[in-house]
Amino acid sequence: MNLNGLSLIAGRAAGGGKKSFICTTAGSGNVLPPAYFCATTEDIDSAVAAAGEAFHIFSRIPGMRRAELLRNLAMNLSRQSQTIVARAKAETALSEVRLHGELSRATNQLQIFAHQLEEGSWLQARIDTSDPGRKPNPKPDVRSLMRPLGPVAIFGAGNFPLAFSVAGGDTASALAAGCPVIAKAHSDHPGTDELVGQILCRTLADVGLPGGVFSVLFDDSHDIGRQLVQHRGIRAVAFTGSRQGGMAIAQVAAERSEPIPVFAQMSSINPVFLLPGAMSRSGASIAAALAHAMNLSTGQFCTKPGVVFVPDGADGSLFTAALLERAAAIAPAPMFSSATAARYRQQIAERLSAMGMARLNYNPESPTATSTWVSPVILQTDAEHFLHQAALEDEIFGPALLLVTYRGIGQLVSIAENLSGQLAASVYGTPEDLSQNIDLLGLLEQRAGRLVFNGTPTRVEVCNAMVHGGPFPATNLDRHTAVGSAAIFRFVRPMAYQDAPQAQLPDELKDENPLGILRLVNGAITSATVQSR
Amino acid sequence: MNLNGLSLIAGRAAGGGKKSFICTTAGSGNVLPPAYFCATTEDIDSAVAAAGEAFHIFSRIPGMRRAELLRNLAMNLSRQSQTIVARAKAETALSEVRLHGELSRATNQLQIFAHQLEEGSWLQARIDTSDPGRKPNPKPDVRSLMRPLGPVAIFGAGNFPLAFSVAGGDTASALAAGCPVIAKAHSDHPGTDELVGQILCRTLADVGLPGGVFSVLFDDSHDIGRQLVQHRGIRAVAFTGSRQGGMAIAQVAAERSEPIPVFAQMSSINPVFLLPGAMSRSGASIAAALAHAMNLSTGQFCTKPGVVFVPDGADGSLFTAALLERAAAIAPAPMFSSATAARYRQQIAERLSAMGMARLNYNPESPTATSTWVSPVILQTDAEHFLHQAALEDEIFGPALLLVTYRGIGQLVSIAENLSGQLAASVYGTPEDLSQNIDLLGLLEQRAGRLVFNGTPTRVEVCNAMVHGGPFPATNLDRHTAVGSAAIFRFVRPMAYQDAPQAQLPDELKDENPLGILRLVNGAITSATVQSR
Repeated sequence: MNLNGLSLIAGRAAGGGKKSFICTTAGSGNVLPPAYFCATTEDIDSAVAAAGEAFHIFSRIPGMRRAELLRNLAMNLSRQSQTIVARAKAETALSEVRLHGELSRATNQLQIFAHQLEEGSWLQARIDTSDPGRKPNPKPDVRSLMRPLGPVAIFGAGNFPLAFSVAGGDTASALAAGCPVIAKAHSDHPGTDELVGQILCRTLADVGLPGGVFSVLFDDSHDIGRQLVQHRGIRAVAFTGSRQGGMAIAQVAAERSEPIPVFAQMSSINPVFLLPGAMSRSGASIAAALAHAMNLSTGQFCTKPGVVFVPDGADGSLFTAALLERAAAIAPAPMFSSATAARYRQQIAERLSAMGMARLNYNPESPTATSTWVSPVILQTDAEHFLHQAALEDEIFGPALLLVTYRGIGQLVSIAENLSGQLAASVYGTPEDLSQNIDLLGLLEQRAGRLVFNGTPTRVEVCNAMVHGGPFPATNLDRHTAVGSAAIFRFVRPMAYQDAPQAQLPDELKDENPLGILRLVNGAITSATVQSR
Repeated sequence: MNLNGLSLIAGRAAGGGKKSFICTTAGSGNVLPPAYFCATTEDIDSAVAAAGEAFHIFSRIPGMRRAELLRNLAMNLSRQSQTIVARAKAETALSEVRLHGELSRATNQLQIFAHQLEEGSWLQARIDTSDPGRKPNPKPDVRSLMRPLGPVAIFGAGNFPLAFSVAGGDTASALAAGCPVIAKAHSDHPGTDELVGQILCRTLADVGLPGGVFSVLFDDSHDIGRQLVQHRGIRAVAFTGSRQGGMAIAQVAAERSEPIPVFAQMSSINPVFLLPGAMSRSGASIAAALAHAMNLSTGQFCTKPGVVFVPDGADGSLFTAALLERAAAIAPAPMFSSATAARYRQQIAERLSAMGMARLNYNPESPTATSTWVSPVILQTDAEHFLHQAALEDEIFGPALLLVTYRGIGQLVSIAENLSGQLAASVYGTPEDLSQNIDLLGLLEQRAGRLVFNGTPTRVEVCNAMVHGGPFPATNLDRHTAVGSAAIFRFVRPMAYQDAPQAQLPDELKDENPLGILRLVNGAITSATVQSR
């Protein structure tokens, strides 16, 4: 596979203006060829026009055809795993084990959406048959199902070059829904994005679908991304990244003459609540789990535990000591870009100027202040200081953990009442701890997309029941998940047919149910045929 | 039942500052006592605080309890139907038949949501059981369901004092979801809103639920509404009304430090496409249906047909003549407020200044220019002029209809390609017309929430399959419906529990499935118990 440094527009390496950018290896900073030519306004127009054309076909083919695309894509990505992982490793400094795991996650996602398309109940087909004799007005025949929105713009994440990028969960769910995708490549891993993009283009051709279903655009500024979101032909946007980035994109979308939805997965501190019984019974093992979780992929997970609430007293002190011992054994490691590492150091410095803040650890082999390499940082404050400084709820992206000591459950409840929205919250508790803290748990249900019991928030299983979302600022639209099969619902809307002749109905809504899917017919879920009129 | 002219805050007539407003009878302009005292900032604080308290209880009681509330409310509204309809008739000038029908619609909505709560599959309970032995990482137990968002602010519609107001579809779906409601009464029908609010408060007390579940606030300016949307304790907003009003509220919500969703149902011209075969075969009966539909409730329906595309030629001319004959037989009638009537006249005058626009009818008994009474207006232009004047796609609220003559299907396709979002679109066609116009139908599917075949868009059946929504500017969030049982999804978000002990799970997600609801368990829809671990 050759890298060309050119955007992929509707299946062809094409476009690009005079501007280009160079990518470097994370960690060492060596130049990684080729140069990447920035997409132009004309490239966006071409990609969106091709996506609009392709939508007419792609949105109407049977779900089984789109499932075939996803399954073939998964297979083709697996076949090229060595090439993809090697490039991603060079670009992001993430470990080979992690990157192979991430590629498996990406292919697993594609399989899950394929399965969902084959099964069909996700369409939420609903049928209410007519009653022409009803008084005072006849009852019409009404049938509805989920329809794709149209071409979607996807902004991949720097920290997940595979599972949340060009062929990641957002692309998988948009393609599953029937929406063409225009991906804005991340400028920290353009080579990985080009490789994956080439495989996606080839797979589309293999299965006989139009090239306009997919494009990748390169750029190292915000210009192309902004223009893409503003383009009249784009009907929705998915973004994974910083709160600042997500809110900027949401604002551009809201200011369009025809606003479109933005699904931005942004920032979260994923608080961990350690209850007294659990602390007493298993403080050391919890410390080990949290030290591991905070440093997974050098803390570059959106579900990294960022704040841990620790009971004041002897058990809490033992826990803290155990955590510090574990943290001391962690060697420095590179972040995925030097800008990310610089931002990490800056945030740590800012955080240390907060009232009542202490740093508990210093790594003896601490990296230089300008390096891409970083060490874990354990900070500490108490509940009073946490409650009165809202900035302590801002995410620090990287291997930083803030321990907050609390005195009594009343303080935890106050904290939970005032907590901003989170992707996940964890509670460690014995059965007694949990049954005595129903109020705390109830508050956390309101503030988080996912509540984890006796485990870290870090790993996000790809499954039907997963919710990777949550109230602002975790996301901007808390009624959606970015991971798991329900992620498809971001890219569809319900549409109803009233008194439609059978010939004008999609197969999913026809009386004879040719696809054999489950439907809600006159209030009952069934895959039976419908006796209408 | 006595009217007090005071806001109802958590079950009590209370609050109100020094400011008050007077309501008048629609049509005649007589003063209707009592004076209504405008709510204050303190009243909002009290109502939201009570709603927040009530949420802890109301969101956790079994769905059956909320179903009991809705069924009792429906019964109590029916019992007071004479009183309610008499007041609503005086305030809005809508007919008794229409208002009794609207009250039936409101009680029907309450019953449908009650049924949905009793049945339970709306919760979208999903369970993926654990696999502790999976390599390389153990698989956690993940379970999710829909959870209510929290206290909701609801802005009722002037044109629907019952079915889209204080106890209308928005309130019914929010209460069904488990969200307390704070309704901003409409200043054109405050007495109706107070009567309905009193019944809701009494019903809450009857079934033993906290008064904080429901409040109604009166005001005749935008102040109280804006402050309500800005209040930290409000978690979502539903609005039915003008595009200007909906977008203003959406902007206030977006500018909060913690943005919240606004579900605004706004403006739509509900275009009707008359295809040549249908025109030839049944032009006269279509004309009769459209003349009736455009004038239902004096054109004050959000699904009133606003624009009709008519084929050029003899059949089209016969249709137009038949429509004008029907329109000439329609007597003037009052709109629900003098401001609405004034706006209607102003919009007609503006529309007549468009290029290529003609007025086809003049009612001999035309009302005076300042009256609340109005007559139907039939306007005409051609497809070229329609395509080049975007303002012709703006809704005229009231009994106005624009006929657009077209030459050939190519013009219809161009119009459909450029059409803004619609609540509904109608197509009249013979089987041959329809099979020859797949492209047109495909475009309309993308631009409308509901596609009606050989019928007017006007009546919106309350059922499971209904979609009363659609792309901007019909609504601001096209992934939701405001009518039908799926309207509940506006007020919930998914929430996941990971590795939760059985005791900490809601009944809906427990292994033994005590509620007997349908759930998605490891990918299969079933009401069976779960064998976990």
